[in-house]
Amino acid sequence: MISSVINEHRLKYPALKNKSYLNFGAQGTMASSTIDAIKQSYDYVQEKGPLSAGMFAWLVEEGLRCKRLIAEEFGGKASSYALTQNTTEGCNIVLWGLDWKEGDTLLTTDSEHNGVMKAAVQLCKRNKLKLEICNIAELDSEEEILSTVEKSLESNPRLFMISHVLWNTGRVLPLRKIVDLCKSKNVKVLADGAQSAGVMPLDMIALGAEFYAFTGHKWIGGPEGVGALYVDPNSLNELEPTFAGWRGAIFNAKGQAIDWQPDSSRYEVATAPFPLLSGLINAIEVHRQAGSTSDRYDSIIQITKKLRAELSTIPNLKLLDKTGGSSLISFSIEGAVHGNIVKTLESKGFIVRTIPNPECIRASVHYFSQEEAEKFCDALKASI
Amino acid sequence: MISSVINEHRLKYPALKNKSYLNFGAQGTMASSTIDAIKQSYDYVQEKGPLSAGMFAWLVEEGLRCKRLIAEEFGGKASSYALTQNTTEGCNIVLWGLDWKEGDTLLTTDSEHNGVMKAAVQLCKRNKLKLEICNIAELDSEEEILSTVEKSLESNPRLFMISHVLWNTGRVLPLRKIVDLCKSKNVKVLADGAQSAGVMPLDMIALGAEFYAFTGHKWIGGPEGVGALYVDPNSLNELEPTFAGWRGAIFNAKGQAIDWQPDSSRYEVATAPFPLLSGLINAIEVHRQAGSTSDRYDSIIQITKKLRAELSTIPNLKLLDKTGGSSLISFSIEGAVHGNIVKTLESKGFIVRTIPNPECIRASVHYFSQEEAEKFCDALKASI
Repeated sequence: MISSVINEHRLKYPALKNKSYLNFGAQGTMASSTIDAIKQSYDYVQEKGPLSAGMFAWLVEEGLRCKRLIAEEFGGKASSYALTQNTTEGCNIVLWGLDWKEGDTLLTTDSEHNGVMKAAVQLCKRNKLKLEICNIAELDSEEEILSTVEKSLESNPRLFMISHVLWNTGRVLPLRKIVDLCKSKNVKVLADGAQSAGVMPLDMIALGAEFYAFTGHKWIGGPEGVGALYVDPNSLNELEPTFAGWRGAIFNAKGQAIDWQPDSSRYEVATAPFPLLSGLINAIEVHRQAGSTSDRYDSIIQITKKLRAELSTIPNLKLLDKTGGSSLISFSIEGAVHGNIVKTLESKGFIVRTIPNPECIRASVHYFSQEEAEKFCDALKASI
Repeated sequence: MISSVINEHRLKYPALKNKSYLNFGAQGTMASSTIDAIKQSYDYVQEKGPLSAGMFAWLVEEGLRCKRLIAEEFGGKASSYALTQNTTEGCNIVLWGLDWKEGDTLLTTDSEHNGVMKAAVQLCKRNKLKLEICNIAELDSEEEILSTVEKSLESNPRLFMISHVLWNTGRVLPLRKIVDLCKSKNVKVLADGAQSAGVMPLDMIALGAEFYAFTGHKWIGGPEGVGALYVDPNSLNELEPTFAGWRGAIFNAKGQAIDWQPDSSRYEVATAPFPLLSGLINAIEVHRQAGSTSDRYDSIIQITKKLRAELSTIPNLKLLDKTGGSSLISFSIEGAVHGNIVKTLESKGFIVRTIPNPECIRASVHYFSQEEAEKFCDALKASI
């Protein structure tokens, strides 16, 4: 992307003004216009409601508008998306939605996010399921990963929960090929898209996973607390709602629930922070002003490629993922206390984070992070 | 309350300016300062974060501040509250949290909210539980209600899910006495506080229900999408987390979950719209400026008493609850199409709603609704 255009675009994000933010994998920056859109929706709700028939119709339309935009960005139909609070909620909806039988097997990997992993362990404990772990953290080649997955599928799992991009190393997994392996064994796939959505072009149809959970508050730049879960329409009837409420069901005139909503909105429960949807809509629109998803991804790759090369020159620094391809750059420094380095960096205005396993530092960029990325290596050297 | 003070207080709520809002049971009005507090938090998060170690510490503190304020208002310890999205989510956490065995019985009433009822039906379907219904909708006296509850408890349920205030008729149930009956039979109580929280003084300890779910977006005047679930500390170990994530667990240095949080925060899942907590805090503080909870409840009762008396003079109008005591005033008009009346009222700026069962119109007031309540009867007469 042309740097003068990017420099102007950056002005839309107040978080970029007073620090070097390289922590998009934890939370993304919000544009001023995104916050303004939220404020305007709150004001509008008070002016026209807060809850009247007219306002309710507006809220429904705003939700549909949001889903249509999500579908434009990520593929599939708008009706295939349930609005959630975050990636973890999306994963929980899927984990708890299958009709598990005692002794069934859930397959996941050794590189899933702590929180989602806790959800999987708890599901298995309470439903007496077997939890099988596919060890991919230390594999380098795609062939090794695929053959390891194939071997793990011999445990005959019903569901494979796997990240599209590993949150710890930043490795992009060959999701479509993994899905193909799973389809051949009749295993459903729940993809954790926390570290992929908003980074790279994604198409739910082409990827083929039955379930894909992601959040709006990282690279998408929406408010924290709004995400989405894609459910393949062919899998709707195999995924029961667990937590349920008025949003997910259809009621007759006597107020009796007569059916679920015919689409993925059946997994939505009850009153949510609806005005934040206006923020998510705006966030997506702001990114579009900067270029196509594919242009934005190219910029991310250019920035990470350069930064990875620079980091490689630091003695004793090891990049955890050999391949690149995501926004995440995870590295360890032999003999260093990573937590202290991150703390020192934060005191100098460079925001990154540690990851517990493999123990490392993780920087993560957006398509407009060139300025921060260029300064990061020197700041890191001065903080070791 | 002194009307000149109230008139000034009303100016804080923009929703009151251009209509006659009598629908607090659906959603409450937000003060301008509450919306401003939310906006300020969004701005602050961008200025200091969005996510850094420093910002994370602030978010944790804001969550604790919110819970401390909730505990001051509703009793018990701050640590006994889990922050939720809404009442329904709170109910789902409890419904799915018990260690149900096939054939166990869940008891509820014929007057629960549609959405929560759907959750109960779904829980029972998926776990092969019996759902018993205690019919209280048409009972007038407290004695009848208590004896009917006592009889229903003979079905030997493990949990009784019951509203503190019935959303349809507005009836306030004798919750403490119901809890006592349940305790004598070792039945746990999940109280749905959607229509009680922010209306009347509540003390979780005195009420004695093991579980009490409510929302912040009705009479409390907070943003939609933030609520709380009270869990009696003695029942923590009997209520397993279902949906789980990073907020509910304790992790070791390697990122492995080693335990649940020691308090009710174990039921919190993952990233939520944290800046909205600043709004909820502000909303509670604004109400305090108008008087104590008990003073505010007195005003609600004064307003409803007068309005109920006026409504009673309308031919063919029947008040569904003989006792009063809540903010809700539900009434039916023989031969009328209630939906049309509500629509006509909305076109004249009077916001109320219909209820499907018993089919009726429901108005609901706050302590500052005197002005709207005084005009309502004439508007209704002109809309029949």
